[in-house]
Amino acid sequence: MKILILGAAGMIGRKLLAHLAANGGPGGAPIKAVLLHDVVDPVPPAGLPFPVEGSSGDYAVPGVAERLVAGRPDVIFHLASIVSGEAEARFEEGYRVNLDGARALFEAIRAVPNYAPRLIYTSSLAVFGAPCPDVIDDDYLCAPASSYGIQKAMVELLLADYSRRGFLDGVAIRLPTICVRPGRPNAALSGFVSSIMREPLNGQEAVLPVEEAMRLWIASPRAAVSYLMQAATIDTAPLGARRSLNMPGVSVTVGEQIEALRRRAGDEVARLIRRAPDPVVARVVGDWPQRFSATRAIGLGFVGDADFASILETYITEDLAPARA
Amino acid sequence: MKILILGAAGMIGRKLLAHLAANGGPGGAPIKAVLLHDVVDPVPPAGLPFPVEGSSGDYAVPGVAERLVAGRPDVIFHLASIVSGEAEARFEEGYRVNLDGARALFEAIRAVPNYAPRLIYTSSLAVFGAPCPDVIDDDYLCAPASSYGIQKAMVELLLADYSRRGFLDGVAIRLPTICVRPGRPNAALSGFVSSIMREPLNGQEAVLPVEEAMRLWIASPRAAVSYLMQAATIDTAPLGARRSLNMPGVSVTVGEQIEALRRRAGDEVARLIRRAPDPVVARVVGDWPQRFSATRAIGLGFVGDADFASILETYITEDLAPARA
Repeated sequence: MKILILGAAGMIGRKLLAHLAANGGPGGAPIKAVLLHDVVDPVPPAGLPFPVEGSSGDYAVPGVAERLVAGRPDVIFHLASIVSGEAEARFEEGYRVNLDGARALFEAIRAVPNYAPRLIYTSSLAVFGAPCPDVIDDDYLCAPASSYGIQKAMVELLLADYSRRGFLDGVAIRLPTICVRPGRPNAALSGFVSSIMREPLNGQEAVLPVEEAMRLWIASPRAAVSYLMQAATIDTAPLGARRSLNMPGVSVTVGEQIEALRRRAGDEVARLIRRAPDPVVARVVGDWPQRFSATRAIGLGFVGDADFASILETYITEDLAPARA
Repeated sequence: MKILILGAAGMIGRKLLAHLAANGGPGGAPIKAVLLHDVVDPVPPAGLPFPVEGSSGDYAVPGVAERLVAGRPDVIFHLASIVSGEAEARFEEGYRVNLDGARALFEAIRAVPNYAPRLIYTSSLAVFGAPCPDVIDDDYLCAPASSYGIQKAMVELLLADYSRRGFLDGVAIRLPTICVRPGRPNAALSGFVSSIMREPLNGQEAVLPVEEAMRLWIASPRAAVSYLMQAATIDTAPLGARRSLNMPGVSVTVGEQIEALRRRAGDEVARLIRRAPDPVVARVVGDWPQRFSATRAIGLGFVGDADFASILETYITEDLAPARA
């Protein structure tokens, strides 16, 4: 099996590669080669049990996607995108990368004869916009309140059509807010969700721009990688024309996050969170959906995190402890 | 007020122009000029009470949309599209015209300084795909089962984002199946819905490709024009980021259509309908939604046809009688 990871230098891309190295391809299939692509050169770790090729560049530029699919990868993970804050700040660039880039990829695939790879696209709960019901079911309207959400929803529609027409075999997974993201904050408006856990655990101050009552729909990076692998193996026939799936998550308030941190790491750590209300962040994130039924995904075998305490534990085990070791 | 009609040579475009000539602009505003554009030269009727300029060409070609909005029309009716059957048969052309064309128009508008015209976009119930509930409410998922529906749903999303960002002031109206369309059949898969009324009333045979039990969501061309005018005048502030509206319609089975024809025009006329089941048409049209709550639109003052008998009467009064006079 040949695998292409687009957006391979990002956090999820690197964790996905580590998972493939440890567990083999989707369904345990042996991996012949992995092609990693990102706007910056992906740096794969040493000692991988399969050949890895790195490639960098702007995948929305004509010709790049054609080159990426020339080797006919069997499975494509499309994780690349400009994040929400940047897509809002840079209107044209958001559409160029997030929409036109994905379309260029789909078109490049369509141009390869007798080829319809499994394509897993990471969408987002930003495809939903206020007002949302308390629990969003699988038939609820996508009415995004951000350019990023609009772009994700548009690519979901394209993916569904290209799948229906047989040009590719797509699955779009709408990831919850990922927490705890290791490393440095990115430009996502949801950055604080990880930051208020990660920085204190690393002995640093974190800024909380929203109320503690704000409720979020969260999954660990480990759960996100398991969703990607599951999406690469499921039978897509039962999906019909509806190729987008709301992923399972944990519904938790910011206050519950902080309480879990306090229980795990103590008062002193939890006190490193400084309240600095930011009405812009509060308004945008406050409109995000807080809870999903995720009925279809659960029925298809997608399994999420048990609770927020285990999400925190995942970070400590997978990222914090190795970094200190 | 200056008005631009894109897709002006089509049936709705011509009826809209006649309405403007008889009633003035949206809200009764005096009309300074109307610009008509279509892929073929629109031929306006003589004696219009305002200056009319005609323009033809492919509006998806770079430069055309810029020219169309250079005069800063206050209201733009975007009715242009490749119909469902053609968008399914010609994949690339469907995306080029229906998606890229609309995007080129929105981009041309965005490029004009201090300009955010009211833009009315005719969408379609093809944005919904099976399985649908018996009655579709305003929060129901858009999961199109055709390339045409995908393109319409994508443009709706773009329209919402361009509106939210203040680049234009858009309203997308999802028109029911229009019946009775005057003139010749077009390539829409729903063509029979009008054909089985129109051809018999004109003494000609019509072909019915579906079962009489098939239920449809229908509006007259007169109702469609009234929706366009209403969409041009409503206060868009209450719409928020949700700029797409399901339009009111009449839910009717094909059998009820035929019975209404029989009652109005007699057995001999109704006998001109020849049954010739076409599984392809039956499958596609059978998946279309059959009934909507249209709660938001009704609350905003959109008023549809009373019943199917009055829809039939509208055709006889507006189209059949004048053609025979």
